[in-house]
Amino acid sequence: MTGDNAAAASPAPPLVPVLAVVGVGLIGGSFAAALRASGAVGRVLGVGRQAASLAKARALGIIDEAATLERAGQEADLIFLAAPVGATASILAELKPFLRPQALITDAGSTKANVVAAAREALGERIGQFIPGHPIAGAEKTGPEAADPALYRQRTVVLTPLAENSSAQKAALTQMWERCGARVVSMEPGVHDAALASVSHVPHLLSSVFMWQVATAQDSDLRMALAGSGFRDFTRIAAGSPEVWRDIFLTNRPAVLAELQEVKAALERAEQALQNADGPALQDFLERAALARRFWGSRSGYHE
Amino acid sequence: MTGDNAAAASPAPPLVPVLAVVGVGLIGGSFAAALRASGAVGRVLGVGRQAASLAKARALGIIDEAATLERAGQEADLIFLAAPVGATASILAELKPFLRPQALITDAGSTKANVVAAAREALGERIGQFIPGHPIAGAEKTGPEAADPALYRQRTVVLTPLAENSSAQKAALTQMWERCGARVVSMEPGVHDAALASVSHVPHLLSSVFMWQVATAQDSDLRMALAGSGFRDFTRIAAGSPEVWRDIFLTNRPAVLAELQEVKAALERAEQALQNADGPALQDFLERAALARRFWGSRSGYHE
Repeated sequence: MTGDNAAAASPAPPLVPVLAVVGVGLIGGSFAAALRASGAVGRVLGVGRQAASLAKARALGIIDEAATLERAGQEADLIFLAAPVGATASILAELKPFLRPQALITDAGSTKANVVAAAREALGERIGQFIPGHPIAGAEKTGPEAADPALYRQRTVVLTPLAENSSAQKAALTQMWERCGARVVSMEPGVHDAALASVSHVPHLLSSVFMWQVATAQDSDLRMALAGSGFRDFTRIAAGSPEVWRDIFLTNRPAVLAELQEVKAALERAEQALQNADGPALQDFLERAALARRFWGSRSGYHE
Repeated sequence: MTGDNAAAASPAPPLVPVLAVVGVGLIGGSFAAALRASGAVGRVLGVGRQAASLAKARALGIIDEAATLERAGQEADLIFLAAPVGATASILAELKPFLRPQALITDAGSTKANVVAAAREALGERIGQFIPGHPIAGAEKTGPEAADPALYRQRTVVLTPLAENSSAQKAALTQMWERCGARVVSMEPGVHDAALASVSHVPHLLSSVFMWQVATAQDSDLRMALAGSGFRDFTRIAAGSPEVWRDIFLTNRPAVLAELQEVKAALERAEQALQNADGPALQDFLERAALARRFWGSRSGYHE
């Protein structure tokens, strides 16, 4: 009786007894913080290349301790990769020999076809333990100090599951993201990559190219002194991590190049209308863009 | 003594006894609201094409009453033009016959060389009464309900004075903008137009072209469902008034077209690096853009 009572009084074990986060910046730190805030994790291990970031993450209570990939593989029930996508293959290859049989690995990479190929190569027969994912949140802020348990609330998380993933694992990962407040959708990696090339990667390229061009102009000081809130918004993404975005462009190269051709064709049309001083054509295209943007803004759930 | 006391007790006359605002939306409404909040105006007349906007502006206390251009010319000490730049010539021509000799006219147009030419044509020998201006503030919101007395606080206002303007008039206008909390700088119209083509007009064109291209894609629903905060920021300006922006593009056409060539050349370079999968070149350009944007963000005085 006493034993039964004690069992009844002890709390249920957390959904994830040990979570390992590889990369303790905005994305990884926010995932850990959100799961911890919801009571879904026991202990959090942090893995990273920069000792200062790990110390910061620990001081902020985002992780309980810093660990090697080896220890993360040996102890973690869930391993969350939040490193630049170009590092996925080497991280998985290093993890593989130590991985517990029931452990689940997922990632937060902004490109998926390339990550799937890298994971298959690195994990071999253990590929079923990896469910590729991409939370659509955050970007321009970096570092553990930017981590926010509310980052994923009302945000979309795309999973691109593999044939080898079990239904139970997919359900478990979906549940974890839902504990972070996110909405989970599933699709093929190629569909994800083409859509993200359009709405994320090409805008980042255009914003960065534009910022580069203004910054390298002879009269850049004058220009920037006259830049206002439109400039601020249009160029905000250009402040994002160069390393992260280099990897995104390289790993989603065909989709980005293809989408860029479409945008350039649209730009040619607008430029032609301007060259012709064709007011009605300009207004028509500006109206369609404005209506589409206002409609998106009213339905996206993003705070303007 | 009684008379002297009464005179001493009566308040100083306002800086602008009668202000007329042509266009009572965000820009005009905010100017009126800011001057009123600082006690710088007596009465405010509102001129506009839309009765509903005028009624709204009056209900909000932004203007005291609606008026025709004729009455604005007859009564106003300061006339502030906040209509689309394409309407400047016809508004000035209509005002001219009624204009008081000491009245000062200024505008808020986003392009200046074209406005100066239109003003010279419309005002003839009265051109000295017009001081061209451009407050760098606001954009994507519209209508009198968006008017905000704090809109111009810590913002830059460019004046492009004419040889015919008197020093006293220039000082008076500068003082009024400073009462709104703004910082006033002066330059040649062509210098203004080239700089604004770079940091305002080309970004608006790129953002609108991009938004148009996403909205007209076959799978636009999927794309927009996966759009995140980067998309939100990059496309925010595309929601701006199509009429206002059509006029800006048409009136600053040569500068916008010239600047667009520079941006396209930069885009070709970035695209080439991507085509070559040249990681170091991509990272180098992304780093330069990110550093420039972060530096601007830390110094611009804009809230991120």
